[in-house]
Amino acid sequence: MAFSIPPYNPPDFTRSELKNAPTVAFKPTPKDGVAPEMYHATSVYPEYFQLEPGKWQLITESRMDCVVVKENDGALSVKEFRNLKQGEPVACGRRENGEDGIYVHTNAFDFPDRVSEKFAFRSHLTRETSFSIDYDELYELLEHERHNGFIVWVLGPAVVFDHDARGAFADLIENGYVHALLAGNALATHDVEGAIFGTALGQELYSKKTVTLGHYKHLDALNIVRSEGSIQNAIENGRIQDGIMRAVIMKNLPYVLAGSIRDDGPMPEVTADVYRAQDRMRNLTRRATTVIAMATQLHTIATGNMVPSYTVIGESRVRPVYFYSVDMSEFAVSKLTDRGSLTARSILTNVQDFVVTVERGLRKRVS
Amino acid sequence: MAFSIPPYNPPDFTRSELKNAPTVAFKPTPKDGVAPEMYHATSVYPEYFQLEPGKWQLITESRMDCVVVKENDGALSVKEFRNLKQGEPVACGRRENGEDGIYVHTNAFDFPDRVSEKFAFRSHLTRETSFSIDYDELYELLEHERHNGFIVWVLGPAVVFDHDARGAFADLIENGYVHALLAGNALATHDVEGAIFGTALGQELYSKKTVTLGHYKHLDALNIVRSEGSIQNAIENGRIQDGIMRAVIMKNLPYVLAGSIRDDGPMPEVTADVYRAQDRMRNLTRRATTVIAMATQLHTIATGNMVPSYTVIGESRVRPVYFYSVDMSEFAVSKLTDRGSLTARSILTNVQDFVVTVERGLRKRVS
Amino acid sequence: MAFSIPPYNPPDFTRSELKNAPTVAFKPTPKDGVAPEMYHATSVYPEYFQLEPGKWQLITESRMDCVVVKENDGALSVKEFRNLKQGEPVACGRRENGEDGIYVHTNAFDFPDRVSEKFAFRSHLTRETSFSIDYDELYELLEHERHNGFIVWVLGPAVVFDHDARGAFADLIENGYVHALLAGNALATHDVEGAIFGTALGQELYSKKTVTLGHYKHLDALNIVRSEGSIQNAIENGRIQDGIMRAVIMKNLPYVLAGSIRDDGPMPEVTADVYRAQDRMRNLTRRATTVIAMATQLHTIATGNMVPSYTVIGESRVRPVYFYSVDMSEFAVSKLTDRGSLTARSILTNVQDFVVTVERGLRKRVS
Amino acid sequence: MAFSIPPYNPPDFTRSELKNAPTVAFKPTPKDGVAPEMYHATSVYPEYFQLEPGKWQLITESRMDCVVVKENDGALSVKEFRNLKQGEPVACGRRENGEDGIYVHTNAFDFPDRVSEKFAFRSHLTRETSFSIDYDELYELLEHERHNGFIVWVLGPAVVFDHDARGAFADLIENGYVHALLAGNALATHDVEGAIFGTALGQELYSKKTVTLGHYKHLDALNIVRSEGSIQNAIENGRIQDGIMRAVIMKNLPYVLAGSIRDDGPMPEVTADVYRAQDRMRNLTRRATTVIAMATQLHTIATGNMVPSYTVIGESRVRPVYFYSVDMSEFAVSKLTDRGSLTARSILTNVQDFVVTVERGLRKRVS
Repeated sequence: MAFSIPPYNPPDFTRSELKNAPTVAFKPTPKDGVAPEMYHATSVYPEYFQLEPGKWQLITESRMDCVVVKENDGALSVKEFRNLKQGEPVACGRRENGEDGIYVHTNAFDFPDRVSEKFAFRSHLTRETSFSIDYDELYELLEHERHNGFIVWVLGPAVVFDHDARGAFADLIENGYVHALLAGNALATHDVEGAIFGTALGQELYSKKTVTLGHYKHLDALNIVRSEGSIQNAIENGRIQDGIMRAVIMKNLPYVLAGSIRDDGPMPEVTADVYRAQDRMRNLTRRATTVIAMATQLHTIATGNMVPSYTVIGESRVRPVYFYSVDMSEFAVSKLTDRGSLTARSILTNVQDFVVTVERGLRKRVS
Repeated sequence: MAFSIPPYNPPDFTRSELKNAPTVAFKPTPKDGVAPEMYHATSVYPEYFQLEPGKWQLITESRMDCVVVKENDGALSVKEFRNLKQGEPVACGRRENGEDGIYVHTNAFDFPDRVSEKFAFRSHLTRETSFSIDYDELYELLEHERHNGFIVWVLGPAVVFDHDARGAFADLIENGYVHALLAGNALATHDVEGAIFGTALGQELYSKKTVTLGHYKHLDALNIVRSEGSIQNAIENGRIQDGIMRAVIMKNLPYVLAGSIRDDGPMPEVTADVYRAQDRMRNLTRRATTVIAMATQLHTIATGNMVPSYTVIGESRVRPVYFYSVDMSEFAVSKLTDRGSLTARSILTNVQDFVVTVERGLRKRVS
Repeated sequence: MAFSIPPYNPPDFTRSELKNAPTVAFKPTPKDGVAPEMYHATSVYPEYFQLEPGKWQLITESRMDCVVVKENDGALSVKEFRNLKQGEPVACGRRENGEDGIYVHTNAFDFPDRVSEKFAFRSHLTRETSFSIDYDELYELLEHERHNGFIVWVLGPAVVFDHDARGAFADLIENGYVHALLAGNALATHDVEGAIFGTALGQELYSKKTVTLGHYKHLDALNIVRSEGSIQNAIENGRIQDGIMRAVIMKNLPYVLAGSIRDDGPMPEVTADVYRAQDRMRNLTRRATTVIAMATQLHTIATGNMVPSYTVIGESRVRPVYFYSVDMSEFAVSKLTDRGSLTARSILTNVQDFVVTVERGLRKRVS
Repeated sequence: MAFSIPPYNPPDFTRSELKNAPTVAFKPTPKDGVAPEMYHATSVYPEYFQLEPGKWQLITESRMDCVVVKENDGALSVKEFRNLKQGEPVACGRRENGEDGIYVHTNAFDFPDRVSEKFAFRSHLTRETSFSIDYDELYELLEHERHNGFIVWVLGPAVVFDHDARGAFADLIENGYVHALLAGNALATHDVEGAIFGTALGQELYSKKTVTLGHYKHLDALNIVRSEGSIQNAIENGRIQDGIMRAVIMKNLPYVLAGSIRDDGPMPEVTADVYRAQDRMRNLTRRATTVIAMATQLHTIATGNMVPSYTVIGESRVRPVYFYSVDMSEFAVSKLTDRGSLTARSILTNVQDFVVTVERGLRKRVS
């Protein structure tokens, strides 16, 4: 069964409550970074704003918990509070069924049926949930998105701590299943440690043997790259011969390494200001059609906050954005997926196995 | 690199503290099920008892937390307290370096080096531990044991909740990697539910769609088998056409289904008396050379308690018994692996992925 | 605010779909332990069976996943499949709104409002859920139940591993907040180890110092009690001077120690046959008005399976049965509480803190 | 038993391997932010550098994974790589027993005995570890440190999600047990949401009822404070009348709110640049004698990286720095406490219970 994008069901604006709805009110931003009272906050869903009677405008490149600004040219943009400029007109109104000229469209896509009975067991996602179909659907999705979408991966360092997973992810990059990478300093550091020393936190990647002065290895990796000026330079100068960062950079893929207070080093490419990092991450998630977030609660939630349940392709084609989170912990996953959206899925497993399995599953399909 | 069994280093009984050791004292069991004072309790290690001066007898088919009884024919047997009969002579003495005629041999095998520095990170096993080498070593081990050992699997029901894992495990059975199965009523129930109705707890195994009256499915499965009189009858009468129990029974493999207070039904083959179940499980673990325990804390710990770190093949060849536990939780794994033995390994992941990966890894090697 | 039992809303049998419902059909049990086809399986809810036109009989002492048998005297009893005798008439029909003469009454009690909006965060229970109100409500509930109910506690061994928790639970027993105890061999063993040796698994209870030959302590505790013939004898003979088992036995409280395949020993009072243990546990849960299950997945699920959401006091007063589960893991709790009933609550924490906090909270109220 | 600071055992520099050790070599920093080859990286332990023959200098205000710079005045300072300036002399040498003029002093304090046998169970810290003594020791420690130390608390937002915990922590501040606070934007946001709206993520703090438009509450809290210009202004203008941030600010306690890529808002006091945030955090941890880190993996690890196992009071008194981490997860705790130091302890529980229990325990001692 070939994968197909679920069709979009646009709202019926001829329904009486929408037909008789007012236009949306905009109020000026009182000062930089502060929204006017009764600002409307965005959700993960498609949202329409009635700018003139009968003209309902869908916002694009949305994200939740932001405000909607009318730009000088009349276009609507979805902005973080901190990016508001004094005087900018912000859409106001908190009712979501047209009462304030705003319509939040919650059931926009026809997903294949997964309806539940009143009396079903197993309403929660746990480690005992079956994931066979999720893998198979993911293979089809990735195969489709490879050529027709924009796949953003969000990686915690666990992926590079394992020999096979690190290799499998580099293969995914080589084979075109990765269009952008979001990660932190730790991923880059331990990936480069693996490339230069063959270790992760001082243990040999494959054999797990602790090497002499192993606790220096990640510091040395950082110091070498800092000495070279950048990971890119270290690659060009032959210091880094394998791994994920190398594959990303050699393929010229966009990436963001966001700083955190846990960082040693950091790697020169890391963005120290977290809000500038957010802006850079969002510039990539604006284009995302599928996001796969693995083994990092911080980056997964950060990205999840930026990714709406839909995107607009070209002039007007609306399609879902798929969001997968992969983690070992029910706690992490329930934090991540409580998005009220059928496009968010979780797989509870070790990301080492996940990456290896996905790479193998895709390879088998292609060959 | 082909797998090879690590050689056994027998103790050097010419060392002065052993050469001058006394013979071990036996005291009679004061009443059924009660050991005499100062009884010696067994460990997971090879233990030697000096029966006559210079004659150190290695106990066989050992298990920890038991006592050592001298049988009428002079042989030593390792018995649970509850199985002691009044008058049976029990080895006494708690010192372990010969002082009481008992020698506990803790470093019996030459394992490949995995030594640590004083200052290493990562001394605990976590989800971030690298498992590539463990998989590879496991493939080699299973390939060896398939023809030269006795592989006991311990299964929690999670294995049959997933379509691919259930199929992969049935394939492992078909291909000779399973010599005995230890499980509970839940595994059998949900495996049979899958075979008869294609569901697990009322959800379709692959699609996860909840079926009508899904909460009846496991009860119906139990009722059908109870009506047939046994799982075996239900297979013979064509009611059960796939799955793990069918594969086990069709291959005539020994298995134990141990009862628990959580059980519905139960399946007719379930042993209701837990101590009789222990005895039956131990009859299989006496023969075990490798044990793989997955996603069941109860059965894994129960089996772990019964499995020593070594076994004696034929007259006198001593080899290690390998014990793998696979679970999602650091807590479970730290309970399971605190055995002070290098033959115990753990892999932290979802057993669904584990089973599928192992089956695939073995298939690839063979083909 | 004093605690009050939520009132029961009986079904309105004059509603047309119930008024015109048929009487329920009974079919004979085809053979011992096997239900007739289309048997009706019970839920946790109050269920009514129309025996004669207009006479709807509420079942009492119910539990889920059982069948309903009409006894010779016309009374209805809720039986496990394994307890069915050939020929016994079993209620049949799987529709739950009267179509088969069976009505499952799902919203029977007026609970204080906890309604959610469409767009709420935090629909899952996690470690970040606030539990202040749950503690306060629990104090009120226990205070009420102490004199007006039957409080069943289900205990994992973690409670006796901690000095303060073990003492606090003994105080709860002393002060009348415990009416019955369900546990396993491990709880009794480590509680008695604590009483005789002051250790838990060989570590001093309070200081956590490992004592000499600590790994013998739980075996010695078992051997001493087995030698005495029972825990009760060991208490009477002065071997056991404190702890939970002593408090239970000195107060003549009913208890069940159910066996499991993990057990050493076991203690003489342990029930080896798990289905007989189930029967004994259910004899206590039949009377339960509140159940508190702590730190034991096996016993908590087993008990949860036996406890309905309601009970009938005297001739006809219907009241809820409260079920609390306390555990560290979201996974455990989501397995335990997926009962579709507002009477089930969970608190995610370490049971050591839970027991100490509850005992302190109750003491403060009383003093 | 009153708490007392364990005495410090200074190294014996008359031992031959130290007496004959060379002086330590310093090499110039080759460029800003890059250490010279063979730089020495610091540990959590006291480290001595032989500057002239016989003159071993103990570094102060240390932290692990940094380098040691000789300042112009001859003093040694411990610097992050990123803060190195070209030309600064960095101590070089990786051997730790004097061979390079560097001595790492690993057993510096006489801690009360907690020694283990060869054969002990329970070598890992889990939820089943007993924590009674840890609470009692913590009460004594905090009572001592209140007047004689500098207690730094590291808080995840879970603390303010619970009514009682939020109140108890504010009481700890009032009563002098808190000398500095390290947290993130989420803590401040939800604490202020609680103060202004009585909610946490849109649920009433105590009753957990979801309020109308609850998902706006944390955004409104942020917008109000941003409109006021600072949390401090919002307090002065009467917008914030209770909670943790108010207690901290009213007592003029130093605090750092470090930004992260997950942040909404942020609060005006948040430091956006994570390395500037690190510097500010370290300015507080330099003074720390006890650190208690709760329910935040990110901030706990970040702080743990900055806190050595000792500090120097006045001219030369060396004492331990205590580091407690409190979390629900064995995984988190094993990441946090693998510091090779007896001054690091962990308690596995819900921080809600932890804070309430600690506040109650301290209050009882005082009253």
